[in-house]
Amino acid sequence: MDATALWQRYQDWLYHHEGLGLFLDVSRVRFDDSFVAQMQPKFEQAFQAMAELEAGSIANPDEDRMVGHYWLRDPDLAPTAELKHDITSTLEKIHTFAQKVHRGDIHPPDAPKFTDILSVGIGGSALGPQFVAEALGAIDAPMAIHFIDNTDPAGIDRVLAQLNDRLATTLVIITSKSGGTPETRNGMVEVKHAYERQGLNFAQHAVAVTGIGSRFEKLAQTEGWLDIFPMHDWVGGRTSEMSAVGLLPAALQGIDIDAMLAGAKDMDAATRVPKINGNPAAMLALCWYFIGNGKGEKDMVMLPYKDSLLLFSRYLQQLVMESLGKEKDLDGNTVYQGIAVYGNKGSTDQHAYVQQLREGVPNFFVTFIEVLHDRNGESVEVEPGATSGDFLSGLLQGTRQALYDNQRDSITVTIPSVTPRTVGALIALYERAVGFYASLVNINAYHQPGVEAGKKAAAGVLDLQRQLVTTLDKAGQPLSLTELAERMGATDKLETLYLVVRHLHANQRGVSVSGDFSRPASLTIAPR
Amino acid sequence: MDATALWQRYQDWLYHHEGLGLFLDVSRVRFDDSFVAQMQPKFEQAFQAMAELEAGSIANPDEDRMVGHYWLRDPDLAPTAELKHDITSTLEKIHTFAQKVHRGDIHPPDAPKFTDILSVGIGGSALGPQFVAEALGAIDAPMAIHFIDNTDPAGIDRVLAQLNDRLATTLVIITSKSGGTPETRNGMVEVKHAYERQGLNFAQHAVAVTGIGSRFEKLAQTEGWLDIFPMHDWVGGRTSEMSAVGLLPAALQGIDIDAMLAGAKDMDAATRVPKINGNPAAMLALCWYFIGNGKGEKDMVMLPYKDSLLLFSRYLQQLVMESLGKEKDLDGNTVYQGIAVYGNKGSTDQHAYVQQLREGVPNFFVTFIEVLHDRNGESVEVEPGATSGDFLSGLLQGTRQALYDNQRDSITVTIPSVTPRTVGALIALYERAVGFYASLVNINAYHQPGVEAGKKAAAGVLDLQRQLVTTLDKAGQPLSLTELAERMGATDKLETLYLVVRHLHANQRGVSVSGDFSRPASLTIAPR
Repeated sequence: MDATALWQRYQDWLYHHEGLGLFLDVSRVRFDDSFVAQMQPKFEQAFQAMAELEAGSIANPDEDRMVGHYWLRDPDLAPTAELKHDITSTLEKIHTFAQKVHRGDIHPPDAPKFTDILSVGIGGSALGPQFVAEALGAIDAPMAIHFIDNTDPAGIDRVLAQLNDRLATTLVIITSKSGGTPETRNGMVEVKHAYERQGLNFAQHAVAVTGIGSRFEKLAQTEGWLDIFPMHDWVGGRTSEMSAVGLLPAALQGIDIDAMLAGAKDMDAATRVPKINGNPAAMLALCWYFIGNGKGEKDMVMLPYKDSLLLFSRYLQQLVMESLGKEKDLDGNTVYQGIAVYGNKGSTDQHAYVQQLREGVPNFFVTFIEVLHDRNGESVEVEPGATSGDFLSGLLQGTRQALYDNQRDSITVTIPSVTPRTVGALIALYERAVGFYASLVNINAYHQPGVEAGKKAAAGVLDLQRQLVTTLDKAGQPLSLTELAERMGATDKLETLYLVVRHLHANQRGVSVSGDFSRPASLTIAPR
Repeated sequence: MDATALWQRYQDWLYHHEGLGLFLDVSRVRFDDSFVAQMQPKFEQAFQAMAELEAGSIANPDEDRMVGHYWLRDPDLAPTAELKHDITSTLEKIHTFAQKVHRGDIHPPDAPKFTDILSVGIGGSALGPQFVAEALGAIDAPMAIHFIDNTDPAGIDRVLAQLNDRLATTLVIITSKSGGTPETRNGMVEVKHAYERQGLNFAQHAVAVTGIGSRFEKLAQTEGWLDIFPMHDWVGGRTSEMSAVGLLPAALQGIDIDAMLAGAKDMDAATRVPKINGNPAAMLALCWYFIGNGKGEKDMVMLPYKDSLLLFSRYLQQLVMESLGKEKDLDGNTVYQGIAVYGNKGSTDQHAYVQQLREGVPNFFVTFIEVLHDRNGESVEVEPGATSGDFLSGLLQGTRQALYDNQRDSITVTIPSVTPRTVGALIALYERAVGFYASLVNINAYHQPGVEAGKKAAAGVLDLQRQLVTTLDKAGQPLSLTELAERMGATDKLETLYLVVRHLHANQRGVSVSGDFSRPASLTIAPR
């Protein structure tokens, strides 16, 4: 395409949201008008399905649930007065709680104010808060936030060591819908233990964000935690950033959560427009479908050219991959859907892997996130007539052009600056795009049936470990792996037993082993 | 494959390095013996090529360079006495410098000791140091490290604001082979400016790591920086972690760099063994080739189950993608090679995108990194008979099994614990695997011709920006975009002009614009 035609295409497809100052450029995705026409009927269905979802239909049939994250930003849309009240009262409660904490009305037992937040959660209970903290957290925030988002003992120890002398003034937020997520439960137990080791009353530092009526809610009530905030069953983990899950830590960090909600609300309104060109979420979904042939054939590489947006790709990995990565479509056909997402930030990643993007395997498309505002305050010139920000901008344009020259598609989202309002809008934009794309490929974007298999298998491994220790104790003599497996009736699980023994041995727990781990048949295992 | 056969396969292929305590399991990659036999001739060539490379052949023909990162760990292998001396003297210099800084023999002008390190670099000059700092940096390290790895003004401001009251005791390391990398140069200018704003003498806080004879070396000499450390032209950026680039910041953080080098040296020796089964790097390369059909058809998902290894995937993105992502093979054929790499950490990522890995588009394989040692000190039980570490281990096994059950291949690398020695070994393992794989697919792993295109295009954008400002000033009247382009003789660059104007306008620099940015034809642009 010559420069004039390309410039015309740029203008024809340029999306601009005046209120948000957001632009979307899809001119570097090489679909043509006939493709758009061909997709029109699918989009009409997608717009219809989205309208029904927003009106309260059971959009997640497998779990028999409504999907209500859009109501969080515009409670007037909630299908019942009760739901609306749930939303507004929770928001009010968050504001009040944050104010009281900031003023010291709510404070730790032996200090006038909380200084830090320790957030314990994983997946949807961590990625949104982490992304928002990185994007919007101020250096002089009223409270600094820390995360435990795994069940790695050394990782937990590191976070607790960093907090060590401030544990007494740290507010702990444990986020778990059911309380049944083992990583989060483990984090809670470990943190509680750390408080007890310092002679501190954990409950007087703890807040729960959890499903109403969950076991975890009851635990928090019984132990007399500071407060409990609700997770509604019509909000999925990966779309929970604008529920208490995301808003509570954000408000405590002094982030303007009303602006986040307003940005998302504006974007939600803009992505209700039932046409493709003119609806930025529909435009994204169109591009994804075109690029990946409706089958996720290409990876989505996210390159925000702004350090504070570093975690956007991790946030989107969950939103996109957990929503779209499905074996079955809504009619029960095996489809193996999904779109892989990765990326960190530009121009840093140019020095890591743009070599492959430009010249190597063409199995991806890039989404550039451009931020127009460079910094607060003046810039020095790093060369005559050019600032660091000009370089950042030029490197984005240059890379986009270099990719296009080699037939690599890209999308560019432009925001004026990184603010609560634009971050809310970005989240809403991608939530909606994922919803549309799921309609286009006829899948349920709101369940995650594949997560269970790994969890069940993990529980099986832990059961086997307990059985192993019991069996060894009962045996009263060293056993080979095979003998051990025979006594346990688990001869089909020799490998798992070996791996469990190796792990226990390395931690000097449960077993005493002699022999060579590189030759499993040589091992003899005794109780420790 | 039934459990017995699979257990046999596990044992037949289990690699164990006794000295390092490292295991490699490739049993969940479904190659068979005939595939291995078929690959044997290619591997013989790869072993031969690697031996020649280590002996000092010109393994990077495009840049007419030797490839010597293996010599860094075993200087006796260097092909000349002079090269050997370069390596050992640099290492000695690093040790001495770090000791002097720690003791306060080298100190800032107005304080007895340096407290912090600010590392300015990008790509190979940042990813290794960042990975190593995250993996091995102690909480009570003698110096804390901070990074500027981009030309984002807001990102630079944030790092400088965090350091604000410690800038006077911060040692700045600027790492750039030529001094010509604009992001690093910009970072240097910005940091220098910050020192000057505080009335501090930048040169007395600054150290250069750069190529011998580079412009940047001369600058550092002229300005009287504290010291200069060499980057040798036979060490590429992405394999420079065990040169001064990585070792200097590591030593300053109190990390045992000799142990890192020793771990790498042991792994280098282990991966010189000229056979497939028994050489862990060859086994990895075999798996990569099998899984991706020698064409990178599947992405490499890295899942270390240990928080401190979070950045390993970012490190490998560069090592793997920049090395392997090539358009041409060594015979000049167009091949579009590469392997995409992404991932963060387990079990956290299980809650983000294992849904897609288990059920969705099967366009990937997983590499699990297992760390046997859970933590220093005792673990509480989070459930009867189970610790947080048992859960982490169980979740790894469970996910590996769930993926295998759905025909998704995985590799597992097991290390005893995260130490300088094992981190050195991991780096060496992947460096060698990349080298072998490059031989198998007949490409040059040691150049990066595709990076230039984006840089050149970026420079073009900046030139256009300067020309735009000059043209506007000369015009003395508002111009439309088209008029501006005509006066500049750049009517084929209307889009770039528009994007430059939009960026300048957002930063209130150079231009004064009226009109609507969503309709480029409506804009009139005046000098500011």
